Amino acid sequence: MGQNDDEIKISRDEEEENMAAWLLGIKNLKIQPYRLPSLGPQDVKVRIKALGICGSDVHHFKTMRCANFIVKKPMVIGHECAGIIEEIGSEVKSLEVGDRVALEPGISCRRCNLCKNGSYNLCPEMKFFGSPPTNGSLAHKVVHPANLCFKLPENVSLEEGAMCEPLSVGVHACRRATVGPETNVLIMGSGPIGLVTLLAARAFGAPRIVIVDVDGHRLSIAENLGADATVQVSTLEVNSIDAGAEVVKIQNAMGSGIDVSFDCVGFNKTMSTALAATLSGGKVCLHWAGEVDVIGIFRYRNTWPLCLEFLRTGKIDVKPLITHRFGFSQKEVEDAFETSAQGGNAIKVMFNL
Amino acid sequence: MGQNDDEIKISRDEEEENMAAWLLGIKNLKIQPYRLPSLGPQDVKVRIKALGICGSDVHHFKTMRCANFIVKKPMVIGHECAGIIEEIGSEVKSLEVGDRVALEPGISCRRCNLCKNGSYNLCPEMKFFGSPPTNGSLAHKVVHPANLCFKLPENVSLEEGAMCEPLSVGVHACRRATVGPETNVLIMGSGPIGLVTLLAARAFGAPRIVIVDVDGHRLSIAENLGADATVQVSTLEVNSIDAGAEVVKIQNAMGSGIDVSFDCVGFNKTMSTALAATLSGGKVCLHWAGEVDVIGIFRYRNTWPLCLEFLRTGKIDVKPLITHRFGFSQKEVEDAFETSAQGGNAIKVMFNL
Amino acid sequence: MGQNDDEIKISRDEEEENMAAWLLGIKNLKIQPYRLPSLGPQDVKVRIKALGICGSDVHHFKTMRCANFIVKKPMVIGHECAGIIEEIGSEVKSLEVGDRVALEPGISCRRCNLCKNGSYNLCPEMKFFGSPPTNGSLAHKVVHPANLCFKLPENVSLEEGAMCEPLSVGVHACRRATVGPETNVLIMGSGPIGLVTLLAARAFGAPRIVIVDVDGHRLSIAENLGADATVQVSTLEVNSIDAGAEVVKIQNAMGSGIDVSFDCVGFNKTMSTALAATLSGGKVCLHWAGEVDVIGIFRYRNTWPLCLEFLRTGKIDVKPLITHRFGFSQKEVEDAFETSAQGGNAIKVMFNL
Amino acid sequence: MGQNDDEIKISRDEEEENMAAWLLGIKNLKIQPYRLPSLGPQDVKVRIKALGICGSDVHHFKTMRCANFIVKKPMVIGHECAGIIEEIGSEVKSLEVGDRVALEPGISCRRCNLCKNGSYNLCPEMKFFGSPPTNGSLAHKVVHPANLCFKLPENVSLEEGAMCEPLSVGVHACRRATVGPETNVLIMGSGPIGLVTLLAARAFGAPRIVIVDVDGHRLSIAENLGADATVQVSTLEVNSIDAGAEVVKIQNAMGSGIDVSFDCVGFNKTMSTALAATLSGGKVCLHWAGEVDVIGIFRYRNTWPLCLEFLRTGKIDVKPLITHRFGFSQKEVEDAFETSAQGGNAIKVMFNL
Repeated sequence: MGQNDDEIKISRDEEEENMAAWLLGIKNLKIQPYRLPSLGPQDVKVRIKALGICGSDVHHFKTMRCANFIVKKPMVIGHECAGIIEEIGSEVKSLEVGDRVALEPGISCRRCNLCKNGSYNLCPEMKFFGSPPTNGSLAHKVVHPANLCFKLPENVSLEEGAMCEPLSVGVHACRRATVGPETNVLIMGSGPIGLVTLLAARAFGAPRIVIVDVDGHRLSIAENLGADATVQVSTLEVNSIDAGAEVVKIQNAMGSGIDVSFDCVGFNKTMSTALAATLSGGKVCLHWAGEVDVIGIFRYRNTWPLCLEFLRTGKIDVKPLITHRFGFSQKEVEDAFETSAQGGNAIKVMFNL
Repeated sequence: MGQNDDEIKISRDEEEENMAAWLLGIKNLKIQPYRLPSLGPQDVKVRIKALGICGSDVHHFKTMRCANFIVKKPMVIGHECAGIIEEIGSEVKSLEVGDRVALEPGISCRRCNLCKNGSYNLCPEMKFFGSPPTNGSLAHKVVHPANLCFKLPENVSLEEGAMCEPLSVGVHACRRATVGPETNVLIMGSGPIGLVTLLAARAFGAPRIVIVDVDGHRLSIAENLGADATVQVSTLEVNSIDAGAEVVKIQNAMGSGIDVSFDCVGFNKTMSTALAATLSGGKVCLHWAGEVDVIGIFRYRNTWPLCLEFLRTGKIDVKPLITHRFGFSQKEVEDAFETSAQGGNAIKVMFNL
Repeated sequence: MGQNDDEIKISRDEEEENMAAWLLGIKNLKIQPYRLPSLGPQDVKVRIKALGICGSDVHHFKTMRCANFIVKKPMVIGHECAGIIEEIGSEVKSLEVGDRVALEPGISCRRCNLCKNGSYNLCPEMKFFGSPPTNGSLAHKVVHPANLCFKLPENVSLEEGAMCEPLSVGVHACRRATVGPETNVLIMGSGPIGLVTLLAARAFGAPRIVIVDVDGHRLSIAENLGADATVQVSTLEVNSIDAGAEVVKIQNAMGSGIDVSFDCVGFNKTMSTALAATLSGGKVCLHWAGEVDVIGIFRYRNTWPLCLEFLRTGKIDVKPLITHRFGFSQKEVEDAFETSAQGGNAIKVMFNL
Repeated sequence: MGQNDDEIKISRDEEEENMAAWLLGIKNLKIQPYRLPSLGPQDVKVRIKALGICGSDVHHFKTMRCANFIVKKPMVIGHECAGIIEEIGSEVKSLEVGDRVALEPGISCRRCNLCKNGSYNLCPEMKFFGSPPTNGSLAHKVVHPANLCFKLPENVSLEEGAMCEPLSVGVHACRRATVGPETNVLIMGSGPIGLVTLLAARAFGAPRIVIVDVDGHRLSIAENLGADATVQVSTLEVNSIDAGAEVVKIQNAMGSGIDVSFDCVGFNKTMSTALAATLSGGKVCLHWAGEVDVIGIFRYRNTWPLCLEFLRTGKIDVKPLITHRFGFSQKEVEDAFETSAQGGNAIKVMFNL
């Protein structure tokens, strides 16, 4: 396994030549030798040629942590990368030396329930380039599983290959939200995540995309990248008197209903704006670890036949819930509502008419 | 249409006999005559025999409002009901006079996009018994569409028929969450909604159900109704030092992972507890109008092939996002990270190694 | 209701002016007066301006039937149409006189389970223009529900509006198959249905589309409409020695895996070719009434935990299935397999080692 | 990897003690020594204690093949098994020596697209116990990946553990068909697969299950296992005059609509009966390699808004499809239909009224 630190065996040559950018402390990056793990039968060795800096890298650089992940010992930084295959493991058939590849940075265990069910991004054993304690890929060379290295088409550059990582965030978001040609999309935030979401939503066929930010320059970039409309708001951080007015402004900019909103900022205000602006039955997407979905429930639809079947067969017995009974006289109606209003031991108060 | 107030034609007999419970003001209910709308060809007239009081009825009773719905003029209260068919419209074939039926209380427009797509509970034109301005069903008789009246099986009582309405809330929640024999269920709150959710989750085959409340009496009812374990917490309202400890206590009570949580309280604390307690990839269900879902997103899975296809075909151009380029010397690495950290006009900072 | 024949009230004027094409017998069409049903409160009267002929219309014209639908009395033919609003019902708010509209031809009951659940195209009470016994729309004027009349954008012609009907077949097929930017599409048949499926698949973002037919001219039309590759086969009707070779030819034309195939011909051969050509886990779409899906099942994935839970709790008892037991000697192994091979009363033969 | 034949290193002791049932030819099974592959770090060695005979084992025994899989060299037979852990690999944490486990028999590559997406049962590199050329598990001992060995609950016997394999077929089928408390189930065939499907459907909450077979004894077993009704038919093989009558008999036995049918026989007749008996919008499940689904399509639902959007934006141009135009005179109507009926180069024939 590429990122396994155990039993590292390297030759003197490799030790001399492979250098990497090590994060040693806050704002303390040093280029130092990086001894690679041995090449497993399903691994490849890649000469890194392009690597982009991600917001999480900057967090690590500035604070030695990102969310719950803390850098406790020197770590090679970086994870958005592409390069050229230098060596292949004994069982690798899909790649050859010299192939230009983009690297998917996370190695899941492939054995847990989440991996088996196809949600490997949620694997609790994930080893992810540059997420502590796993070393990253801002290095001359890395060892990585072949099945996470994707050959670049001829007309795609190594830099574009490295951009597959941030772009993947937008693509996964659009897949999760099932964006398509019937999905009007709102994007809160015009930073790098907002912009790749815009690009992905466009490619998934979204007919109309509105993007919101405080920064006019960022919004002009979004327009150049194909946003149909932009809305500049005064702040993304604090709930204000204008919250409702901003929702209306956003809805007007869309011109028709908003089916899916992406909150690419993650503040309370952006979330509440997104929720208020989105159509009934729509979706708001939010970045958080765990991918727990919050499902909205309102009343019911076409449930009576099933309820009656549950009652008929005795799978459900509702009778214990009926704690009080009243007739339909003026006094009893008043008493019944008072009983229900007082709560206490009353669960269900029932009238018999 | 049953609840249409236009062109009401009733006989003197009906005027004399049909009485209903009118909400006239705060805690002011009066039994008074209720002139029914005319019977349309697809409608039935139902003699109400059982009606339960819902929390929303109590809200109206105590405050003349519930959420955004305000009682502005006298309104017949009540909506959880069952009764006996007294008369059928000219085109009704599914029911006969004398049939015992449970009534689904909401009449949707059946013409809007949400109705056409099967989400009729979200119809903006919904006319719902006892939700202002639509009159309710705490009355001797009501007129209602035949397709919303469901014949009771012989062994199901009229009271049980009236209980289909609150039970439907639990059933719809379990459907939306796709509860089944692989779904360990957490329920926050052991009030009427929590209890019907418990009954429904059991009937959908949930292998293990844990329910949480502040009230020991309510929890004992939940145990009698079949909860596998209960957890009593000190408060549902305020975030406290013990929040993390409560999550652990709840998870221990489950004994294995929590797949789906139902927040049947709706406070910040119950929601954050539910989110913290639920497995990665799981669901938290919350009652709110509009059924907007919040979709969690974490990184990506198997997105590289699609990203490369988008880049190859030109459907996506990521090159405009690359605003700065650096080499791989000690100085350039430092400069690159400083540039990225300062934000400004930098979108993507790229190394060329 | 627009197409209800009961209680028709029309003025003399209408009787004089409204003419329609009546199908009176095989290949016997006559333009004759058509008395319209009365305009209901939710209906509109439309002056038809463009109408396309569908394959089903031709079936009716040539044979007085189509599938199980038989023309038993004179019927106005036609259903792919667009026109101009001439009059609106008292409750219609979405349309005005003079609006140019495309007409969705089928009126569902909006009350049955299928309608409630959003599958109104499967409604058993459907009244569909020109499908016996419901009159069609090759007429100067028709009365139709307003919610099935869709206002044309300014730059869309009435002819294009009429084309929404056949195009809808392709759009619905692509929705059902969830075609998107990751879906390589095979289309069997380059007739009108194949071609609208091609147009729709392209619009849903299918990266690569291969279309198959016997007719070179039709394939050239498909190429002009944007098919990436075409395959001409010798016959669509009879299974032949070359079936396997054709599958390989089709797969080579695609160049990568086929995710979704549309059989727009419906012969045994096209279906078996589509099934053979499609990737594991893919979909083959077929036009048939009822939309019953055939779900392929192969072994299982990650089922052991649930099986063990069912056994642990007693929800499933598998012991009655074990009818015979053997030890692990040479003779017993032979006897056990003979017992199992003979069938008879043996359900499960078990070794105890 | 457990079932890898390369570089086998075993001790003399193991060679002496491990015996297995080798299939050497048609109806030629011999107990002979079986040298196990070496124990990998993620593997366990299991002492097999219970093993059931599957229909596919019998096929191999009788014909040296099953479907496309051919036994070309001696192979250990068997795959439905449970046993006791004897040894664990260096990285195994989930199991201990002495644990009683049920074995999932197929080892997927865990690296291909299908594995990544959670459909590992469709992995083209699958190594499956007793499916040629992979050795099976009718042996004293086998080596297997730890993540495919599932610890038995205390009250579940080793024989029941072995039954998890056939039961999994029923469980996976019910999952794929989303069987639940609203799913009336028809099962064609009361053999082992039909019976485990019955058990699973019951456990998933199916309210009513009807099972069909030619064999009265098998049907009586199904009744004992909980079928609500059984239907004995004269033959499962040949389409006969009584096909329609049998469908009616089956539907009457259900008493309400059939939502999901499982064809556990796989003959043309059982499939056509299942298709004819199932409700519109329902599902018929069929066992076949590849899990390609056949999606039924009938007309469309709520497609006009999307069609008009495609036309408005130019994503779709339907004008090239209109090949002929006619007016609305008697002669032109006749000519238009003749033109359309003759086919030829006519794609869409349009009237301008």
